[in-house]
Amino acid sequence: VWTGQWDAGQVAGGYVSGSTGKTVRAVMFDVFGTVVDWRSAIAATVREFASAHGLDADPEAFADQWRGRYVPSMRRVREGRRPFVTLDVLHRENLDEVLAASGVDAASFRAGELDGLARAWHFLPPWPDSVAGIAQIKKDYIVGPLSNGNTELLLDMARAGGLPWDLILGSDVTRAYKPDPVAYQKPAGLLGLDPAEIMLAAAHNGDLAGARAAGLATAFIVRPDEGGPGKAADLAPAADWDLVATSLTDLASQLQ
Amino acid sequence: VWTGQWDAGQVAGGYVSGSTGKTVRAVMFDVFGTVVDWRSAIAATVREFASAHGLDADPEAFADQWRGRYVPSMRRVREGRRPFVTLDVLHRENLDEVLAASGVDAASFRAGELDGLARAWHFLPPWPDSVAGIAQIKKDYIVGPLSNGNTELLLDMARAGGLPWDLILGSDVTRAYKPDPVAYQKPAGLLGLDPAEIMLAAAHNGDLAGARAAGLATAFIVRPDEGGPGKAADLAPAADWDLVATSLTDLASQLQ
Repeated sequence: VWTGQWDAGQVAGGYVSGSTGKTVRAVMFDVFGTVVDWRSAIAATVREFASAHGLDADPEAFADQWRGRYVPSMRRVREGRRPFVTLDVLHRENLDEVLAASGVDAASFRAGELDGLARAWHFLPPWPDSVAGIAQIKKDYIVGPLSNGNTELLLDMARAGGLPWDLILGSDVTRAYKPDPVAYQKPAGLLGLDPAEIMLAAAHNGDLAGARAAGLATAFIVRPDEGGPGKAADLAPAADWDLVATSLTDLASQLQ
Repeated sequence: VWTGQWDAGQVAGGYVSGSTGKTVRAVMFDVFGTVVDWRSAIAATVREFASAHGLDADPEAFADQWRGRYVPSMRRVREGRRPFVTLDVLHRENLDEVLAASGVDAASFRAGELDGLARAWHFLPPWPDSVAGIAQIKKDYIVGPLSNGNTELLLDMARAGGLPWDLILGSDVTRAYKPDPVAYQKPAGLLGLDPAEIMLAAAHNGDLAGARAAGLATAFIVRPDEGGPGKAADLAPAADWDLVATSLTDLASQLQ
């Protein structure tokens, strides 16, 4: 007989944000760089692709150039200069641009080969602390990505890497790219929460500034290895974020 | 060193639908009655509430009357007679209607008491086979709810009952109620799948008819205990659905 007692399943939450004054119920995560290591994985995939297809490219430099077109391509959508398209579409277009800039003719590849290469962004490996940290945080808080990735991409990544999200709401659900306030606030509405009851965990100060402007609590994750040896930005917090953590397991400990 | 090999995380899928001719990649589930036992839980909660608040009500009959207003209330949204509102809003309105029909003045309760009662729909217990069946199916297929419930409701239910969904896309994401074709097809778009690559598992023939009309594969789950001892509808499949299963673990076996 069902007794109506399901307290165990309720979201406990607990951490009270100093900046918003609210108790955090959900911790949502930037993904590229914060939860997964995009650069090593994309460089490794490019290395493999280059070897198989006779492409003359420095894998790490290629990865950096590909990622370098990420923010400008989303900005065109955010500023209304083109209708919303998914990050899959942008990654694929940006690949053509990187090839063209390297003097490589995209038409020299067979149909589908470049599509397959672009899908590498679906299968990026978690940092060593990510799965354990998210699983620990999930005990007391709702956990999910808050990423510019589309739902399919984030789902593939979660299944491949074992990321134990409660739910996945991609940027094709919100139809907005961070730091557009809608990208931070629409998930709150779907969760039935005030934006201040959500904490964004991210390795990038600009993302956290967008989250704070939208009313969220903030946690800076130090990821010195994200950008490779030449990383210059986001080595340290640039503002008084609620929390600063060196890993997602460290964040889990601080949230308890 | 990352090798670019993530085959283990790819969706294997496997079952080929006889009606669509396509390989199924995702199995999505109707929730109320198919995955969880709404009637026992709502009746138990009403019994507890009635005892605590001096409400004169037969708990099972009250549960049936509350549920009886579910389809008509969604139909008003589906037919455009009112703008989209979430199922939480409909459940709360329908509670007031059931009370009024029983001659009970809703104003005799304190603020929030009826809201709390209506939230019982967030915390319905899975049938005994649900968690094991979904976990087994998840090994080879994407799994998620395809329900008229809103995201917050489905999330609370998943956390309370341990439902191991890959992702949760509530009806407030699609902004459509089944059997509107949009409710079945929009999740396919977000998953990057053809509708025929999704199988709906449901205990209601009408839901499966809607899914088939929208291009999905179909599995009928026999749930004789859903409607209580007086259950008359949906005791057996009413059409040649792709699969017929007596539980979600039985469905898992048939999909292997």
